Amino acid sequence: MMAQNEIRLTGSGGQGLILAGIILAEAALLQGDNAVQSQSYGPEARGGASKSEVIISKDDIDFPKVDKADILLSLTQIAYDKYKNSTKESAIVIVDSSIKIDETLKVKRTIKIPIIETASNKVGKSIVSNIVALGAIQEATHIVDQDFLEKAVLNRVPAKFKDLNRKALTEGFNLIKE
Amino acid sequence: MMAQNEIRLTGSGGQGLILAGIILAEAALLQGDNAVQSQSYGPEARGGASKSEVIISKDDIDFPKVDKADILLSLTQIAYDKYKNSTKESAIVIVDSSIKIDETLKVKRTIKIPIIETASNKVGKSIVSNIVALGAIQEATHIVDQDFLEKAVLNRVPAKFKDLNRKALTEGFNLIKE
Repeated sequence: MMAQNEIRLTGSGGQGLILAGIILAEAALLQGDNAVQSQSYGPEARGGASKSEVIISKDDIDFPKVDKADILLSLTQIAYDKYKNSTKESAIVIVDSSIKIDETLKVKRTIKIPIIETASNKVGKSIVSNIVALGAIQEATHIVDQDFLEKAVLNRVPAKFKDLNRKALTEGFNLIKE
Repeated sequence: MMAQNEIRLTGSGGQGLILAGIILAEAALLQGDNAVQSQSYGPEARGGASKSEVIISKDDIDFPKVDKADILLSLTQIAYDKYKNSTKESAIVIVDSSIKIDETLKVKRTIKIPIIETASNKVGKSIVSNIVALGAIQEATHIVDQDFLEKAVLNRVPAKFKDLNRKALTEGFNLIKE
C-alpha cells in the first residue's frame, strides 16, 4: 500500500456510495490507519453523478481533497464519463459491466465486473450493490484488510440485514477471484 | 448568512453526527448552496470524541478542511473540551445541558439546551438526539431553511420513522424558540 491512497466512489444518488465511503474509512481506522471521508454537494452533484471520496493513509492527512484518484469505482456510465479522467496513471479502475470503457484512458488496470447484476440476482437485493463493490475493491486493491472491512460493514447495517450484507461482500470478493 | 459557514458537530460515536452532517449538507443543496461534508478517522477519533464537519457556501468550496468553526455543536463534555477552542470569536456554540461550559471562552453566544433529554423524554428515543440538535441549530443560526432541513431529514430516514424524526426536529426548533 502506498503512503496515501485516494479512492473515489462514483455512481448515481441512491446507490449507497456515501455509506460505502464511511465503511471503507471505518475499516481503515480498525486496521490502525488514518482516513478522511467526504462528499461534495453542489452544481456538480446535480448533474446526475454522485461521488464519495476516501483518503486512507498511514500518516496524518492534512489536506482532505481528492484530486487524482488511485482507485476509481464507477457504477454508472454518467459517473464514469465524468470522473474517468481524474485518475492517476497508476490507478485501478473498477466499473460495472453496464459501462462502456474508454480504451484510450491511461490507467494501470480497468476491471469490468457485474456488480449491480450480482447484487440483484446472486445476493437478491440491488440495494447492496455498494457492498458488493466494496468487496471487489478490497480483493482487487487490498486497500483495507478483509476482516476489518467485514467488521466495518457489519457495524453499519441493522442486525436483520447482516447476513445479506455478508453475502454481498463475499460475492464482491468472488467477482475478482474468479 | 456569511459567504462560507463552517459547522462542526461533535459528541461521541453512535450519536448519529455523521448522518446529521450529511442531512445538513443535503439541506444546503436543496436551497441551492454548495456544501462539503466530511469526517476524519484516526488517533483523534480514538480519543472518545467524534466529529463531523460541514462547510456551506454560496460559492464553490475549494478547500474542505474546517479550521475554526462558525457553529459548534457538542453533545458530550469530552467533545466540548476537545473542540471548544477551535471556534471563531463570532461562533455560535450549542451544547447539551449536561455540559459544563467554559465561561472564559470567547465566542458570540453559547446556548445550553436539553438536547438528549428532549430526544429521550419528549420525543421518546434518545437515538434522535442528532435530529433534535439539527432543529436547534437551524432555529438558532438559520444556516439552512427550515423546510429544506425537514425535507433533507425525511429523505434520509425510513418511512416508519418519519413521524418520529419530524417530531424530533420540531422539538429541536422549540428548544430555541422557548
